[in-house]
Amino acid sequence: MTLQEEMLYIGKQAREASQILARSKTNQKNNALEEIAIQLDQQRNQLTSANNQDLEAGKNKGLDSALLDRLALNEARITGMIEGLQQIASLPDPIGEITNLNYQPSGIRVGKMRVPLGVVGIIYESRPNVTADAAALCLKSSNATILRGGSEAINSNQAIAKCITAGLNKVGLPSEAVQVIKTTDRAAVGELIQMPKYVDVIIPRGGKGLIERISNETKVPVIKHLDGICHTFIDDKADFDKAIAVAFNAKTQRYGTCNTMETLLVAKDIATTILSPLAAKYTEVGVELRGCVDTRNILTDIKLATEEDWQTEYLAAILSIKVVADVDAAIQHINKYSSQHTDVIITEDWSKAMQFLTEVDSSSVMVNTSSRFADGFEYGLGAEIGISTDKFHARGPVGLEGLTSQKFVVLGDGHIRQ
Amino acid sequence: MTLQEEMLYIGKQAREASQILARSKTNQKNNALEEIAIQLDQQRNQLTSANNQDLEAGKNKGLDSALLDRLALNEARITGMIEGLQQIASLPDPIGEITNLNYQPSGIRVGKMRVPLGVVGIIYESRPNVTADAAALCLKSSNATILRGGSEAINSNQAIAKCITAGLNKVGLPSEAVQVIKTTDRAAVGELIQMPKYVDVIIPRGGKGLIERISNETKVPVIKHLDGICHTFIDDKADFDKAIAVAFNAKTQRYGTCNTMETLLVAKDIATTILSPLAAKYTEVGVELRGCVDTRNILTDIKLATEEDWQTEYLAAILSIKVVADVDAAIQHINKYSSQHTDVIITEDWSKAMQFLTEVDSSSVMVNTSSRFADGFEYGLGAEIGISTDKFHARGPVGLEGLTSQKFVVLGDGHIRQ
Repeated sequence: MTLQEEMLYIGKQAREASQILARSKTNQKNNALEEIAIQLDQQRNQLTSANNQDLEAGKNKGLDSALLDRLALNEARITGMIEGLQQIASLPDPIGEITNLNYQPSGIRVGKMRVPLGVVGIIYESRPNVTADAAALCLKSSNATILRGGSEAINSNQAIAKCITAGLNKVGLPSEAVQVIKTTDRAAVGELIQMPKYVDVIIPRGGKGLIERISNETKVPVIKHLDGICHTFIDDKADFDKAIAVAFNAKTQRYGTCNTMETLLVAKDIATTILSPLAAKYTEVGVELRGCVDTRNILTDIKLATEEDWQTEYLAAILSIKVVADVDAAIQHINKYSSQHTDVIITEDWSKAMQFLTEVDSSSVMVNTSSRFADGFEYGLGAEIGISTDKFHARGPVGLEGLTSQKFVVLGDGHIRQ
Repeated sequence: MTLQEEMLYIGKQAREASQILARSKTNQKNNALEEIAIQLDQQRNQLTSANNQDLEAGKNKGLDSALLDRLALNEARITGMIEGLQQIASLPDPIGEITNLNYQPSGIRVGKMRVPLGVVGIIYESRPNVTADAAALCLKSSNATILRGGSEAINSNQAIAKCITAGLNKVGLPSEAVQVIKTTDRAAVGELIQMPKYVDVIIPRGGKGLIERISNETKVPVIKHLDGICHTFIDDKADFDKAIAVAFNAKTQRYGTCNTMETLLVAKDIATTILSPLAAKYTEVGVELRGCVDTRNILTDIKLATEEDWQTEYLAAILSIKVVADVDAAIQHINKYSSQHTDVIITEDWSKAMQFLTEVDSSSVMVNTSSRFADGFEYGLGAEIGISTDKFHARGPVGLEGLTSQKFVVLGDGHIRQ
């Protein structure tokens, strides 16, 4: 079999499995998730030893420590996978939900029934725990999954795949419901994203480069975000203490996440008052500040922010700061530079808060709170398969619902159209 | 300007207008729709004379009578456009709706706000009334529109465009909110579907060939259906009178529409009883019947249906009939041959009705009613921009909601993430 034939075969199997999953019962899916959790728990040694193989190979290949850290499947992370599975089992089943079943003037009743998308292709990089997390979310939403992890995690992923297969078999679901691609041939990704007949959506997770490449080349709809250039705007009607607390938290609670603030906008009337104490707090924890000309008139010893800074997702202890005239100027800057991930206003002014909520064109828009809350769990979705900054289909953190569609159901009693 | 530069310029203008529309108020949009309706009413003579130019050119080019009929903009159709605009003005504004604004354990409140998609590109064939209908739906949902009609309707479309521009100007909305492409160069379509920076969704309306070509070549998400191969399955537990009435209506109420039944499936236990009276009714109105071997054992004088028949959208007074063992066989046939548009079961059996609703993977699934009801107006959507047989973003008849997305809004009071 050529690689293309192999991938088409995997796709065909996934399509067939998806039809069985579409008819599967809630209990069966939940039992499968519980069984997979049990398997992972029983196979801790095998998982660890497979992961050690990957870690060793990674060290020999000279992978950097951040990558090795993401690759590591320690006891805590195995426990995390197990708890994740159990938690997803405990969520309500989104499939089959019928809403808005209302009578129409003709006498028919029309509503919507939630259905799975079909086959989900997940392309991710080094974190092996994504294998279990993503498979579980897709399984719960009755989608078949084709998973393609990073080649550096191949042994870990295959060890997890064995647990998933065992769990599926135990409850009588087809093992093709979750397929973890065995080949490390990079061309497999190219094939996977070119099979609209067998794959209904591609979810790429990883670096901007990977996601950009996939989006440009795929023939399948994609749920994605490229990066997170998140802003916090401190309005001149902001509460001083809330502004300091939120702006500090949004930057420093974690540096490497996509919902971390990268640019702070400050209304000019409050800039002198608030920038000095805030800068002191940032500097204390080692955040490098870069500012516009007006900012540097206040914080005289920081670097000048360039045009490039406004376009950069640092993912690091660096913050760019810009003084803006008012909320209009803030919205303008955000709609120009934001990656449409998450943007925040800090204000006590009702009208300006409402204006910001309405006019900022981002997937999450917040008032008086840290952008770090932009997350499926914090939003009460129960889980998150990814974040979308697009508008088509899903926007913002994507939970089970984003893996579903709705068909119309129409109930009549012999009704005919006049 | 090259054609590409011209199209990019149109796209850029649409994007800018979409940002103004996103902030526009409900009243302003409704007033614009009312003003456009007034303009159309005042310009009836100009519309008719522009349309006469198109009709004459069409006749000289030898267009067939069906196409000339679709092209015609008579008084009734102008009135139809006017009433359509007024009706869309009377619908609730979908934009800005906030739903599910609930407290989360952290104390933040999270909900969803409905927002426009941005810029909608509509590509359609000969019917000039689509120009007003589509523009109105997009305007009501705060989207900018780029419309590209058939070259044979160019004068009619430009006359309608003038009314739209006048209406927009009257209420202070930018005329670039609705742009009807002036060039009849076919390459303009190719450019329009390759501008993801400026166009957020493409809605192609017309023949299967046009839609297939656009779907294959576009870099922009598409809302579409290729065809309507709709089925009605008469179960052996069907009520005899309802079955006859619904199966007759689904085929004969109109032949040329996408929600017309093309294949009738009949459970074998009821086939002998029901096929003869039903065939008599069809034959009486001139419907040609084609049947499987079992059907022809009952209706001995009809043609044999071939494999091709099950795959054909006749859009004509032809019906293929197949006798199937039971509901399982019916579902299997439908999930194999249906175009996932609309499929119907006629039964009094609760379990089989539920099974059919769950397992048939079509955008509309019906019990005891005519497939001809699959329509945005009949479904209470107030209007319809098209029908989608895809699962991503929108499925089934697409009204205003399908032209929108939802962003997350998060309200806090100085909340920070722990």
